[in-house]
Amino acid sequence: MGSEQEQKQVILKNYVEGVPTEYDLLLVKDAPVPTLQGQGEGAFLVKNLYLSCDPYMRGRMRDFHGSYIPPFRPGQVIEGFGVARVIESENPDFKPGDIVSGFTGWEEYSLIQPTGNSQLRKIYPDRDGIPPSYYLGLLGMPGFTAYAGFYEVCSPKHGDTVLVSAASGAVGQLVGQLAKLYGCYVVGSAGSSHKASMRPCNLNFSLSLSLSLSLSHISVTFDCFVSVQVDLLKNKLGFDDAFNYKEEPDLDAALKRYFPQGIDIYFDNVGGAMLDAALPNMRIHGRVAICGMVSQNSLSSPQAVHNLFNLISKRVRMQGFLQSDFLHLFPHFLDDIISYYKQGKIVYVEDMNEGLQSASAAFAGLFSGKNVGKQVICVAKE
Amino acid sequence: MGSEQEQKQVILKNYVEGVPTEYDLLLVKDAPVPTLQGQGEGAFLVKNLYLSCDPYMRGRMRDFHGSYIPPFRPGQVIEGFGVARVIESENPDFKPGDIVSGFTGWEEYSLIQPTGNSQLRKIYPDRDGIPPSYYLGLLGMPGFTAYAGFYEVCSPKHGDTVLVSAASGAVGQLVGQLAKLYGCYVVGSAGSSHKASMRPCNLNFSLSLSLSLSLSHISVTFDCFVSVQVDLLKNKLGFDDAFNYKEEPDLDAALKRYFPQGIDIYFDNVGGAMLDAALPNMRIHGRVAICGMVSQNSLSSPQAVHNLFNLISKRVRMQGFLQSDFLHLFPHFLDDIISYYKQGKIVYVEDMNEGLQSASAAFAGLFSGKNVGKQVICVAKE
Repeated sequence: MGSEQEQKQVILKNYVEGVPTEYDLLLVKDAPVPTLQGQGEGAFLVKNLYLSCDPYMRGRMRDFHGSYIPPFRPGQVIEGFGVARVIESENPDFKPGDIVSGFTGWEEYSLIQPTGNSQLRKIYPDRDGIPPSYYLGLLGMPGFTAYAGFYEVCSPKHGDTVLVSAASGAVGQLVGQLAKLYGCYVVGSAGSSHKASMRPCNLNFSLSLSLSLSLSHISVTFDCFVSVQVDLLKNKLGFDDAFNYKEEPDLDAALKRYFPQGIDIYFDNVGGAMLDAALPNMRIHGRVAICGMVSQNSLSSPQAVHNLFNLISKRVRMQGFLQSDFLHLFPHFLDDIISYYKQGKIVYVEDMNEGLQSASAAFAGLFSGKNVGKQVICVAKE
Repeated sequence: MGSEQEQKQVILKNYVEGVPTEYDLLLVKDAPVPTLQGQGEGAFLVKNLYLSCDPYMRGRMRDFHGSYIPPFRPGQVIEGFGVARVIESENPDFKPGDIVSGFTGWEEYSLIQPTGNSQLRKIYPDRDGIPPSYYLGLLGMPGFTAYAGFYEVCSPKHGDTVLVSAASGAVGQLVGQLAKLYGCYVVGSAGSSHKASMRPCNLNFSLSLSLSLSLSHISVTFDCFVSVQVDLLKNKLGFDDAFNYKEEPDLDAALKRYFPQGIDIYFDNVGGAMLDAALPNMRIHGRVAICGMVSQNSLSSPQAVHNLFNLISKRVRMQGFLQSDFLHLFPHFLDDIISYYKQGKIVYVEDMNEGLQSASAAFAGLFSGKNVGKQVICVAKE
């Protein structure tokens, strides 16, 4: 690990306008590998194993300093949630061999400073019998977002009708399953905005699909792809029903079809047109959890919502939230979800890309609906 | 009170498109006075004294049957909150001379059926030392909306910063005063959308204005009029500050000026552009009470709101509500507000029009910002 060594890094090329593309992030092949020399007590080096692609990261790619998290600088290595192995350490709490999860860099090796905001914590995938990468999704920030959002923001009741958008994504898939376990009626929406350049060869389901569809067939069509998502929601994730919003010319009519009695809970991961269509279909005292607005992330002028007056007549509570406000629940979350997973009560779908060289396309794919399940990049297997 | 007698009535001419005008309601001069003959037990006759003009009534003037309250039919006498005196009764609970408040008709005399939805209750203005008309505003539905909305929906804390829109209206004026009593910093917005045809001669403040402005001067200008509203908010209602939104070319900049640290509570009586401007100015964990959307009432295609993504980063709770969900608090409300009023801790501003012939213009005036304070029609003094 001398300073002569080189490593791959993914950096932000420039502030991003509009929908991110794979050209917004740059792969650097000759970045120096960091060393502990002169770093003082508390620092340690990690080898990155898995990196998480999350929609919120788009927000850090604009030149805006008023958000809850500062922007990346052009030329800066991308930072995000990852799973890594400690390889050298001047920190008594982290020993070589420890597996950690938290903020790390999109690079092969990262230097972790004790004063930084990496919030790395040790994880025990072997002990828990859980694949390490799951700590980026099911047992990481997205899973916890689903958990805190559903139980703490949605005020669920047995028998509630629940709509989940981006339902095959990292957050949506767990929300829907938790709602089913709670005794709710659950419908998911999924879709894809780009028909071209599907890359089904990158799909790495941790379960077998009950479809007569060859996932290695490179020319799989968009319709097949979306039927994968809808089929996944119904047959693997146990949603009561699911639809592809791209096939619905009238979202209001679609929601009336799936929810003839109205919607008690809308777990909104997308904002925009789906939120606008959901509002008039809410039931009295309904709840809308505003979790993400992936449809709005890339718009300089966010899409308009017209139907807010329904909040009054239906007495709807609409609440934005961040999982970070609920961290006191994190230990309960881990206990509950590990237990549910091991009992087979919930499943988890991951979309794994291999290698840092696939990172920029994987990230861009989030915004064109390419991923099926939680989008992860495998940097190294161990 | 024979059936030969005639009375004045105000009826809906036809379903209303767009902003209501005084021509949407028709004054009928030869409607029959109702009698108790053949009505059976429980019915009684009232003489209407004061009628309430409320923005929600606009919603009943469209051909839409999906709301929480059914629409008026063209030709039907307008129904709304009123204060009336019982003049004949077959109902043991209501005796001639009783003063009642609840749903009644926009006419001189109304027949009240025990099976109807008038929800009339006896009031005791003499005992309470409160003018009877105040039971339509300060001590009626608008006042209760302010009370339930502020205490139950806004989750106020001492020191919170509070924005109230339509702040000189029936609801807003009490919200602002309750917030001040609670130890909040309160700024109100007021305005008027029609500069022409101001009718200041109809202003009937229950307090003297500290302005060198002759209210009987028919050519008072719009700017003077709005300064009346802003001055009223600051000098009579005790708001910390107030502004005329029509004078602000940039609402976002205005809110940043009045709330450099951001807004904890926005009590929204208008929707539309003010709501959109408030969202980016909310503080973390802010609350938005969606009480009315008077700016949206008359639009067939409601104005768009673009800034909902702020709900996430600021973790804002936005809640629509109706006072009818909080009726268990009504007795507390009456006790509290009568007590505050008698101690001089709150004041109340009424805009009184004389006679049923003024009703249609008074109602239309709600939507052009003509009223200063609670808009009431006096049908008869006693």
